[in-house]
Amino acid sequence: MKKTDLEKAAGNGLINRRHLLQLGLAGLGSGVASSVLAAENNLKIEIPGWSKQPGPGASAYGVRSGHTEFMQRSAGAPNPLYPGGGASRSPLQHLQGTITPNSLHFERHHAGIPDIDPAGHQLVINGLVKQPLVFSYEDLLKYPMVSRIYFLECSGNSRALLGPNPPDGTAQSIHGLVSCAEWTGIPLSTLLEEAGVEDEARWLAAVGADAASMGRSIPLNKAHDDVLIALFQNGEPVRPEQGHPMRLFVPGWEGNVSVKWLTQLKLTREPVQFRDETSKYTDTLPDRSSEQFTFPMGCKSLITSPSGQMSLNRQGVYQINGMAWSGGGSISRVEVSADGGRSWADAAIESNQSEKALARFSIPWQWSGGDAILQSRATDSLGNVQPTREAILADRGRLSFYHNHCIQSWAVNGNGEVRNTYA
Amino acid sequence: MKKTDLEKAAGNGLINRRHLLQLGLAGLGSGVASSVLAAENNLKIEIPGWSKQPGPGASAYGVRSGHTEFMQRSAGAPNPLYPGGGASRSPLQHLQGTITPNSLHFERHHAGIPDIDPAGHQLVINGLVKQPLVFSYEDLLKYPMVSRIYFLECSGNSRALLGPNPPDGTAQSIHGLVSCAEWTGIPLSTLLEEAGVEDEARWLAAVGADAASMGRSIPLNKAHDDVLIALFQNGEPVRPEQGHPMRLFVPGWEGNVSVKWLTQLKLTREPVQFRDETSKYTDTLPDRSSEQFTFPMGCKSLITSPSGQMSLNRQGVYQINGMAWSGGGSISRVEVSADGGRSWADAAIESNQSEKALARFSIPWQWSGGDAILQSRATDSLGNVQPTREAILADRGRLSFYHNHCIQSWAVNGNGEVRNTYA
Repeated sequence: MKKTDLEKAAGNGLINRRHLLQLGLAGLGSGVASSVLAAENNLKIEIPGWSKQPGPGASAYGVRSGHTEFMQRSAGAPNPLYPGGGASRSPLQHLQGTITPNSLHFERHHAGIPDIDPAGHQLVINGLVKQPLVFSYEDLLKYPMVSRIYFLECSGNSRALLGPNPPDGTAQSIHGLVSCAEWTGIPLSTLLEEAGVEDEARWLAAVGADAASMGRSIPLNKAHDDVLIALFQNGEPVRPEQGHPMRLFVPGWEGNVSVKWLTQLKLTREPVQFRDETSKYTDTLPDRSSEQFTFPMGCKSLITSPSGQMSLNRQGVYQINGMAWSGGGSISRVEVSADGGRSWADAAIESNQSEKALARFSIPWQWSGGDAILQSRATDSLGNVQPTREAILADRGRLSFYHNHCIQSWAVNGNGEVRNTYA
Repeated sequence: MKKTDLEKAAGNGLINRRHLLQLGLAGLGSGVASSVLAAENNLKIEIPGWSKQPGPGASAYGVRSGHTEFMQRSAGAPNPLYPGGGASRSPLQHLQGTITPNSLHFERHHAGIPDIDPAGHQLVINGLVKQPLVFSYEDLLKYPMVSRIYFLECSGNSRALLGPNPPDGTAQSIHGLVSCAEWTGIPLSTLLEEAGVEDEARWLAAVGADAASMGRSIPLNKAHDDVLIALFQNGEPVRPEQGHPMRLFVPGWEGNVSVKWLTQLKLTREPVQFRDETSKYTDTLPDRSSEQFTFPMGCKSLITSPSGQMSLNRQGVYQINGMAWSGGGSISRVEVSADGGRSWADAAIESNQSEKALARFSIPWQWSGGDAILQSRATDSLGNVQPTREAILADRGRLSFYHNHCIQSWAVNGNGEVRNTYA
């Protein structure tokens, strides 16, 4: 089949997925074609050393291959004025699937990672309750738990795109404050019912055991809905940097409210106005007033390959791959454009599409050596459509930087270099 | 509410789940009752040291809490006559959720773990194909991938239960050769279509790059169905002990056919009769004939808490927790008995119920200090019901030990000690 016979799906090289299986070597280009074997008896493969003698046997706790150690979270240098503060970002351009391995889940700390002995940790439920309660870790392990796959995203993720000039970043450096895991824990509603919530209670104040006493106020109706006291992350106890031995998990909302190292839940009439919901995590509007408690994360997607600072080393067909998520439901559609948004084609969704979890998409694209601007646009099960950067700025002004879920544009130039751009 | 008011779900203490939220402290017993606060102003909690000063900040690659390091795979001592051979078992009684963390996924090796450099590894597709193909790792990364959560179980798992006397084991030591992960990879059908399968091909011979050249024959209709060339495991590259840089993944079938360190796929008319499908992984029938290629894993479940070698340290209400899976579909029902199978109650399924993946179940149980035999029985979406040990033995005789998916019985005595038993 000639490349010119490929049915277009949208402008500038997006092609119909039904061609994929017919593309074969012609589609994938010289990288594969050069290794085609003319006949089986010409097959000459040198037996590699690792096939010639037995390797080490089974172990108690496995580690990843040394050949994959370049995949790392990016953490900035420690700031002596903000001890333990800061963040690390997941290497999104190197990962696949919807689960983030625990060792590469993004981090955001306000006073570093406390080393908590579960045997000395307590969770208190008090305030406007009929019966204040204290739970040990062992107590909580006795409760019924549910397992759900949910994304977690820092509300400050992708904020770099709201500045006046496009930063020369990667998927990791611009968008790496999002990850996804299977969280297993106790529905908070179970514990609230046991404590007995007083009629006048409207908010829940959650406090962590870190040295920042990180606290956030959460409306009680969300607390009764799908919030968990999470004890396990991808099957094992919650990692230290994710709140060991327990964290609040508030699905679909900005990560900061999923308070880590959770030690207190206090029922209140009004939000507490914690330091971390007044000095931070508040949106400054164009008239300089502050909008508080803007919790849900928007409908969002991102092409992870090709993405910023990658290079295309040949003309031919590429798989455009990416991830999508929404705090408002499941991902129902992802469209991709190769011409900066002038035309769009539907990508295939290559994973489960579950509520408030990452989804994966892909679509084939034929690069013929010209300029291109690659974009993706997600739609969720509630009908929310990912907005452009211009629409975000028009809506919110330039003083706000949380909750940016705008369309990411990657520019490809004639040399195959991929760079972040505004389009 | 008095305990005697609890509505029974089945004999010997299984209670209706709708009571759960009403049980509160009375139900959970003294462990919680002793820590109840009479009033909020009596709350005296000593501030722990970890809350008093900032901890370390973000890092490039996280590690688990030192307080959880007791959760380990159990690997036997190395056998000098079988270098690199053997297995390690997942600590099922300590894990929660449906995902097994990569470092604790069970292992089974026939010649240890090769340390493969992806840049020097090749996958060959040859035999009865129109065009033999060789792929590098980089080539394969260009193909479209799908992400699916699937269990993997060694066909020899749980074989200890077929011996004449019940071994005094744990969930890990008896059943720990099962795990579950999100596998991301290329549908094998994509690559077969590219190679062009000759009409007379019926089988696929898969060979690993380990020093055992582990090989298995797989019927071509399964290969065209849901088999993957898996490159990623829970979001990161497949771990060395799981086949880095690539493995075959054959959903729902005995683990051995998901050939690790995959280096060759040869299309054939007949099965190859590899060493590992004649000397092993073959069922000896009562007439001493051998049944080969018994691939699918049965419908199975297991109570992980309480389980073997645990102790109940108080009378009162416990959550019975466990896991269920089937090679034949999704888990549609799990029943639990506390009286050795005389009466059964439906457990709640506390996770997604997806095809060929682990599911989690639980049910509350009131232990009043007497003897009990705890069992679980799974049913899958095809209507398969997990059989008793007696039924397995009657069906297959005592010469066969693969594919044991019988009901597990845990005996609880008056001291609260939990032991494996036959019932």
